[in-house]
Amino acid sequence: MKNYSVKELLTNGTLQQDVVVKGWVRTFRSNRFIALNDGSTINNIQCVIDFENTDKEVLKKITTSAAAEIKGTLVASKGSGQNFEIQVKEIIILGASNPEEYPIQPKKHSLEFLRANAHLRVRTNTFSAVMRVRSALSFAVHQFFQKEGFYYVNTPIVTGSDAEGAGEMFRVSALDAKNPPLTEAGDVDFTEDFFGKETNLTVSGQLEAETYAMAMGKVYTFGPTFRAENSNTTRHLAEFWMIEPEVAFMELDGNMDLAESFIKYVLAYVKETCPDDLAFLEKRLLDEEKTKPQTERSPMPLREKIDFILDNNFKRVSYTEAVEILRNSKPNKKKKFEYLIEEWGADLQSEHERYLVEKHFECPVILFDYPAKIKAFYMRLNEDGKTVRAMDILFPGIGEIVGGSQREERYDVLVEKMKAMGIDEKELSWYLDLRKFGTAVHSGFGLGFERLVLFATGMTNIRDVIPFPRTPKNAEF
Amino acid sequence: MKNYSVKELLTNGTLQQDVVVKGWVRTFRSNRFIALNDGSTINNIQCVIDFENTDKEVLKKITTSAAAEIKGTLVASKGSGQNFEIQVKEIIILGASNPEEYPIQPKKHSLEFLRANAHLRVRTNTFSAVMRVRSALSFAVHQFFQKEGFYYVNTPIVTGSDAEGAGEMFRVSALDAKNPPLTEAGDVDFTEDFFGKETNLTVSGQLEAETYAMAMGKVYTFGPTFRAENSNTTRHLAEFWMIEPEVAFMELDGNMDLAESFIKYVLAYVKETCPDDLAFLEKRLLDEEKTKPQTERSPMPLREKIDFILDNNFKRVSYTEAVEILRNSKPNKKKKFEYLIEEWGADLQSEHERYLVEKHFECPVILFDYPAKIKAFYMRLNEDGKTVRAMDILFPGIGEIVGGSQREERYDVLVEKMKAMGIDEKELSWYLDLRKFGTAVHSGFGLGFERLVLFATGMTNIRDVIPFPRTPKNAEF
Repeated sequence: MKNYSVKELLTNGTLQQDVVVKGWVRTFRSNRFIALNDGSTINNIQCVIDFENTDKEVLKKITTSAAAEIKGTLVASKGSGQNFEIQVKEIIILGASNPEEYPIQPKKHSLEFLRANAHLRVRTNTFSAVMRVRSALSFAVHQFFQKEGFYYVNTPIVTGSDAEGAGEMFRVSALDAKNPPLTEAGDVDFTEDFFGKETNLTVSGQLEAETYAMAMGKVYTFGPTFRAENSNTTRHLAEFWMIEPEVAFMELDGNMDLAESFIKYVLAYVKETCPDDLAFLEKRLLDEEKTKPQTERSPMPLREKIDFILDNNFKRVSYTEAVEILRNSKPNKKKKFEYLIEEWGADLQSEHERYLVEKHFECPVILFDYPAKIKAFYMRLNEDGKTVRAMDILFPGIGEIVGGSQREERYDVLVEKMKAMGIDEKELSWYLDLRKFGTAVHSGFGLGFERLVLFATGMTNIRDVIPFPRTPKNAEF
Repeated sequence: MKNYSVKELLTNGTLQQDVVVKGWVRTFRSNRFIALNDGSTINNIQCVIDFENTDKEVLKKITTSAAAEIKGTLVASKGSGQNFEIQVKEIIILGASNPEEYPIQPKKHSLEFLRANAHLRVRTNTFSAVMRVRSALSFAVHQFFQKEGFYYVNTPIVTGSDAEGAGEMFRVSALDAKNPPLTEAGDVDFTEDFFGKETNLTVSGQLEAETYAMAMGKVYTFGPTFRAENSNTTRHLAEFWMIEPEVAFMELDGNMDLAESFIKYVLAYVKETCPDDLAFLEKRLLDEEKTKPQTERSPMPLREKIDFILDNNFKRVSYTEAVEILRNSKPNKKKKFEYLIEEWGADLQSEHERYLVEKHFECPVILFDYPAKIKAFYMRLNEDGKTVRAMDILFPGIGEIVGGSQREERYDVLVEKMKAMGIDEKELSWYLDLRKFGTAVHSGFGLGFERLVLFATGMTNIRDVIPFPRTPKNAEF
C-alpha cells in the first residue's frame, strides 16, 4: 500500500484504491468519523472507522492532535463537501495527545491565546492557512524576479555601518556584557569585539544592493531586517522580512511600474495556488467582523479585495496634489485628523494615507515627489530643488506597503546632502564610489513582506502572519 | 528604439535591428572596439565605434567601468566567439570612471585584493559569474522544495533560547553597552533589555522548524545563521545561509534520499541555467591550479565534477564501517593523520572525512549511525543504545556539506538525554510538547548554502561566494 498526502487523496484520488495516510486527528465524531489533517491542505480527509471491530484502547486514543497512521480504501464520500473518504481497515496511533493536557481544544481560541502557544498554533486551520499563503507568496516573490532577469543577492545581516538612518538598531556583540573591555578614555573598546568594531543588525540591505545593481543590472534581496523601536502596534515587528529590488538605468516611473506589476504577480499567484486557504480566510474574517460595528468592517470580502488590486491600476498622485486634497478634505476642515494638514511640507501620517486610499481614491495609491526634507539622503533631488524622486505605495487597510525612490546618482549632489544631514562621508566612501566609477540612474524599493501577507490573508495583527513574532518584551521560542 | 539587455541581444537578437543597450565598459581596444557588459550575462557585447566621427572628449571617457548608453544597429559579428555586434550610431557616457582612480584595473587582481573591494569586485567576470550561480542555486532550492510540496518557514533570527548548543552565539541587545542596568546581585539586568531577556542570533532554525513540520508535514527554512567562533579558515563564516528541511513521518533512509535528490536537483538546475558562467569558472580554476603542484589540483574540471555528482549514487556507509576503514588505512598506520583513529567512538576530523571521500570511495559519501556521545541531544537513539540515527554527507574538496538526523520522537528518551547532557527542560518545554501531543517519527537536515556555492563554482575560499563576508575582525560595508 502506498503513502499519500491528504491533498493528493482529495485532488487526485481514484476510487477503491488501497491507501496509507499519516496525519493528526482534528476531530472524532460519534466514535466513527475521524477528520484527519496532515498540513498539505486546509481540508481534512474523513476516515470512517468500524468502531465495533476496533480495540477500545485505540478508540480512546483518537483525540484531537493525536498522530495516526491509517490504512484503508478510498471510496466516494456520502457526506457533503468532499468527494472522497477512507474506509479504515487499520488505524495505528503513532503519538497520543492527552485531551486534558493539550492546550488547543477543538473550540474557538483567541488569537492572543494562540500567540502564547506559537509552537502549536499552526495546528489550527487559521494559522496553517496563513502559513501556506505566506509560503506561496515567498515563492512567488522569487519566481517573479527570476523570470524578469533579476539576481538574488544576500546583503549582510550584521552590519558595521550605522549610517543608513532607517531606524533604531540592535547591537551585535560577543563581548562580556557585564565587564566589557574599556579604552583608556573609559568607553567600551569595540576593537576587542568579534568583528573589531561596533556592529548592528541591518535595517535595510538597500545600500549594499545598490553596489550589486551597479554591476549586475537587476538585483533583489529578500531577507530579515530589524528595528529596535518600542512600537507595540498591530503593524510593527522588531524582526521582519523585507524585499528590496534595485535596478540600474531605471527611473522612478519604471520603479512604479515594477512595484505594481510585482504586487499583482504575487497576489495572482496566491489566488491561483491557494484557493481553499483564501476561501477559509475570507470566511474567518467575515466571522470576526460580525462582532464589529459596520464602519470598522472591511469594505470587501478578502478575495474580492485581491481581485480589486489585480483589476485596477494604482492611482499615481504627486505629494503636492495629495496635500491639496488633504487640506481641503472634510476631516481636515472639521479638525478630525489628529495632525492637521496646514501647509506643503507636512509629513503624512497613517490617518492621511488611509483617508487618501480608503475614502478619496478608493484604490491603491502611489504617492511620489515628496519634500526632500522628510525623506532619506540618498533620494534623487528633482530639478525644483525641493522635492525628491520618492514613491510610497499605500494600500487599503494596511497603509504604506512599499517605499522606494530613484537614487541620487550625482556625486556632488549626494556629498552635499550627506553633509547637510550629518552623514559621515568616510563611513560611506564605498557607497560614494558607485557615483565616482561609472555612475548611472538607478532606482529601487522596499516592501515589508509581512504587510503583504497581512493583506493577502485578511489577518489584522502582524504578529499572526510570521511564525515566531519578535516584539518588545517578547522573544519566546 | 528599444532597450535590450546584453543577454537578449546575444541570444535572441535579429540582424539589422536598431537597438539601445546600457552597461559598463569592460575594455576599449584600438579606439574602436568597446566590450560592454550589463551583468545580465558573463558575455560582453562588442560595440564598434566609428572613431573618426566621434567626439574626442567622448572617446577619452570610454574607460573601464564607465557607464554608457549605446544606440546602434545589431549586425553579424566578424570577430570570433559571438554572433552579433553593434555598429554604434551614438554613444552617451552616463558616468565616467577615472582610470587613474578606479581600483580595479583591467588586469588580474588577487582574490584577497578584491575582497577588500567587495563593493566593486562583482564588476569582475569571476565574481559576477559566482553571484549569478549563487542566485540560480537559491532559486533552485525554493523550486525543488515547493515542487515537492514543502512549505517555506521563516524561523526566528533573534532567539531567546540558548539551548541548541550548535555553537557560540552573538548577543543581540539594545542596552547601553557601557553602563547596562544591573540587578541587585550585580549582574546585567536583561529584563530591562528590548526583549525582556537575554537574546542571541540563531545558530539553527531546526527546533522551530520541527514545530512546523509537526503540523504542516513538510517544511524548509532558508535563512541566515550565525557562529561567534574565531575560525579564520577558508571554510567558515560568522554569518552564513542555511537550508533546513524537516519532514514528519520520515525516517533516516527517507532523509538520505531527500538530501541526495535535493543536491542533484539544484546542481542540475545550475548546469542548465548557467552554462556560460560554469564554463568560465571551470577555466578560471584550471588557470589558478596551473601554479599548484599536481597533488593539490582538482581531480576533475568543474563541470565534470558536477556531472559526477549527478551521475553517481552517494555511497552510504555506517560510522562503524567507516571507522574500520580508517583504522586500517595507510595514513593511519603510517601515522600520517594528525588525529589517529584508534577505537570506535572517535570523532571524525576533516582529514578523515576527506580520506574517505577523496581516496577510499572517490565519490560523495553518506555516513550514518554515529556514536550518540559525539552527536546532539535531539537525535534518535538506535536500539543498540549507543548510536544515533545521524547522517553527514561528505563531498570531495568540501568535506561535510550536510548534517542531519532522524529526531528523537519519544518523550521519555528525549528527557533522559537532555538531563544527561545538562540541557534545561524548562527552557525547551515547547520542544518537548511536540513529543507530548501527537508525536511521530520525523527527520531533517541542514545544508550550509555557501559550501554548496563553493562546490558549484569551484571557488576555494568561502569568503568569495557571499557578497559581503563576515569573519573575525571583518564586518566592512
